[in-house]
Amino acid sequence: MEKKKFAVVLSGCGVYDGAEIHESTMTMLSILEQGGQYQCFAPDIPQYHVINHLNGEVMDESRNVLVESARIARGDIKPLKEFKAEDYDALIFPGGFGAAKNLSTVAFDGADAKVNPDVERVIKDMLNLHKPIGALCIAPAVVAKVIQGVEVTIGNDPDTADAIKKMGSKHVVTTHGQVVHDHKYNVFTTPCYMLDATLLDIKGDAGLVVKGMMEELNK
Amino acid sequence: MEKKKFAVVLSGCGVYDGAEIHESTMTMLSILEQGGQYQCFAPDIPQYHVINHLNGEVMDESRNVLVESARIARGDIKPLKEFKAEDYDALIFPGGFGAAKNLSTVAFDGADAKVNPDVERVIKDMLNLHKPIGALCIAPAVVAKVIQGVEVTIGNDPDTADAIKKMGSKHVVTTHGQVVHDHKYNVFTTPCYMLDATLLDIKGDAGLVVKGMMEELNK
Repeated sequence: MEKKKFAVVLSGCGVYDGAEIHESTMTMLSILEQGGQYQCFAPDIPQYHVINHLNGEVMDESRNVLVESARIARGDIKPLKEFKAEDYDALIFPGGFGAAKNLSTVAFDGADAKVNPDVERVIKDMLNLHKPIGALCIAPAVVAKVIQGVEVTIGNDPDTADAIKKMGSKHVVTTHGQVVHDHKYNVFTTPCYMLDATLLDIKGDAGLVVKGMMEELNK
Repeated sequence: MEKKKFAVVLSGCGVYDGAEIHESTMTMLSILEQGGQYQCFAPDIPQYHVINHLNGEVMDESRNVLVESARIARGDIKPLKEFKAEDYDALIFPGGFGAAKNLSTVAFDGADAKVNPDVERVIKDMLNLHKPIGALCIAPAVVAKVIQGVEVTIGNDPDTADAIKKMGSKHVVTTHGQVVHDHKYNVFTTPCYMLDATLLDIKGDAGLVVKGMMEELNK
């Protein structure tokens, strides 16, 4: 049996302006541990901004989302424009503010967020084929904006949960070890670093989302 | 019993100009999984250079090792100058070219490499207390330069193995799943991405180094 192919969509490299590194790495590890394979993707666009991760301040420079995401992928990454839904079994978004600042404007505009056109397209293309879509941390808010009516979790943050409801989607409060599976849309979400967490929690949560998606694929 | 405290020394954020992200994350995860705790450190110095991880080319910009390492540490990181050997049970260096370009000049000068003074100090301070020191990937070459006569592994790369011998230290050829423990100096090394590897190999290798160090600490 061929290994199930996951597309992992990154949004930079670092929690405050890109993809959260631990969530991204644990997602990739979980896919391999559970017998799958992955290909990383990221949009070839400028980051919204660059944050100094030592002091939290905005830095006076610009970086590219695809180029920085390549750090997590060790160079093995493709522009999101090249993603074709027919070539993959599953799609997954690790979290980090990059999902809310680069893949979308959720961090700034909440329920009125705009979503990067390629991100919107790949979610809709997978949805149309009823292939499983996973999202961790804040990334479920991006999926909730694209798939109006979907049920997701981002943990228990009231403002983000409220924004998701205003998008016309549904939010379920969860804690670590819990995954929300929307059966209609085949979407799997979990809170990760939207809650206080250690790497052990992230390993657990990412593993459970991938497990849910794998079970769906092996039905 | 208090949790064993590991100091994890990072060298940037990304395999080609900094700390290898998977090795760093798997080291941190392994420490937690085996009941320990960790604190990240990095020297507050400019990176040797910045590499575009998508195309491998040098970029015309400068970045700081501590600031970029903070991406992997989610901001919870200290300048290496502040490290005190008496406060930690163990010291560990993930790999990545940052070890050979920022923590030392091994990438350019081989056996004649210079080692960052703080890196040299922390290794010697731990050595003097006979506390375990771990190193992954190319980082063992840095330890081999500081502790002349130590026995380490970087896998099977002949040029690097030759440089280590010219430093006056010893090299053992290994593959994944193998750790070299120098009992005299209490140093643990393993190849990781110095060999062809997946994240599963890195998880395994990092776990074994941490296991060896933990067993030593619990003797």
